[in-house]
Amino acid sequence: METNAAAALEDPAYRAAVVDLLGVLAYGELTACIRMASDADLAPSLRIKAQMAGFAAAEYRQYELLVDRLVSIGAEAEASMQPFVEPFSAFHTRTAPRSWVEGLVKAYVGDGIAKDFYREMASFVDAETRGVMDHALDDAGMGDFIVRVVRDEMRTDPTAKGRLSLWGRRLLGEALSQGQAVAVERDALSGLLVGGGADLAEIGEMFTRLTDRHSERMARLGLTA
Amino acid sequence: METNAAAALEDPAYRAAVVDLLGVLAYGELTACIRMASDADLAPSLRIKAQMAGFAAAEYRQYELLVDRLVSIGAEAEASMQPFVEPFSAFHTRTAPRSWVEGLVKAYVGDGIAKDFYREMASFVDAETRGVMDHALDDAGMGDFIVRVVRDEMRTDPTAKGRLSLWGRRLLGEALSQGQAVAVERDALSGLLVGGGADLAEIGEMFTRLTDRHSERMARLGLTA
Repeated sequence: METNAAAALEDPAYRAAVVDLLGVLAYGELTACIRMASDADLAPSLRIKAQMAGFAAAEYRQYELLVDRLVSIGAEAEASMQPFVEPFSAFHTRTAPRSWVEGLVKAYVGDGIAKDFYREMASFVDAETRGVMDHALDDAGMGDFIVRVVRDEMRTDPTAKGRLSLWGRRLLGEALSQGQAVAVERDALSGLLVGGGADLAEIGEMFTRLTDRHSERMARLGLTA
Repeated sequence: METNAAAALEDPAYRAAVVDLLGVLAYGELTACIRMASDADLAPSLRIKAQMAGFAAAEYRQYELLVDRLVSIGAEAEASMQPFVEPFSAFHTRTAPRSWVEGLVKAYVGDGIAKDFYREMASFVDAETRGVMDHALDDAGMGDFIVRVVRDEMRTDPTAKGRLSLWGRRLLGEALSQGQAVAVERDALSGLLVGGGADLAEIGEMFTRLTDRHSERMARLGLTA
């Protein structure tokens, strides 16, 4: 959709979808910030701890950008995030990492799936909203850092590969299941896909792309998807 | 000491003291960032969670400032922080909050004692170093926020006052005990006080000021010191 944002947002259904999208993205960043900083607590070295805290701070800045955008289109930030508190909480309860490395794999794999999905959705929104989303989807080097650390970890622990591969598969399953729950709940969000002209076959293709990219990420980590 | 920083830092003992001071301050901010974000996870509302994550991000920015200053005087940031990892870890292990409010009281009371101490030390360093320290000691509104939240909490829970007062006293005791351990270990740091002309009586007065200000903070929280 290449019309300007102000005109597009006059359509209530479109507006609701954009608010949902920015809301889920903002709450995702807030949660990612808190999770990354909590996991930093368990980091085995000062260097890694400091880098993880840095990623947490970067995620907070992205959260702020998204909140600013919500406010600028007249939405209330807290109300826009509230519908996503419960599904995120369910995802995190079901995927509590038992170690610091599991936390990092979760940040990489979970963030990756979520961000791929937001990138797909970005093609259905106006250019201004897409600009804000693109900015928030930049990972500030976090992925490269995690890949390096996880690969180092596996060199010193030969049992890690099998365990972390299993963990990655579980994360994908839980993410898709919570994602589906959100889609069912949030009509506006799924309406954006359908209203944007995506038919069932195209939605199917989107899911194939999401799982393909997940497999690529797992391979980058040296894990099997 | 009002001489310029570059000249003052040519004295190895002074330089070691400044590196220690910036190192402990930097590691303190990094730890505060991680603790605040971890505690945010338990916050009872989205609003409070977001504010706490914001304070964590502000603490990370202050950490970055201190690291920049360490690097600019030719010190290695990690090496400068390393001596303080163990005492901070001991303090945090001995004062693990059992609730979200205890975490907030700890952030306010613990940060307060540490920052009062750094402010005392700031009068013994060159103007440039003091400028960086002053900036890092700004609490970005965190204290006011915590006072409001803790007072709200006590209105709804009549048993909280006694429990949190006890908690505040324990935090003071543990902070002073870890602070003393650091002073014994780090000759340069205690040398700064003595070399700066502080005699035993003055050091005693400094401790009186620290505990007085602790009592004032407890009173602001509505607690008894």
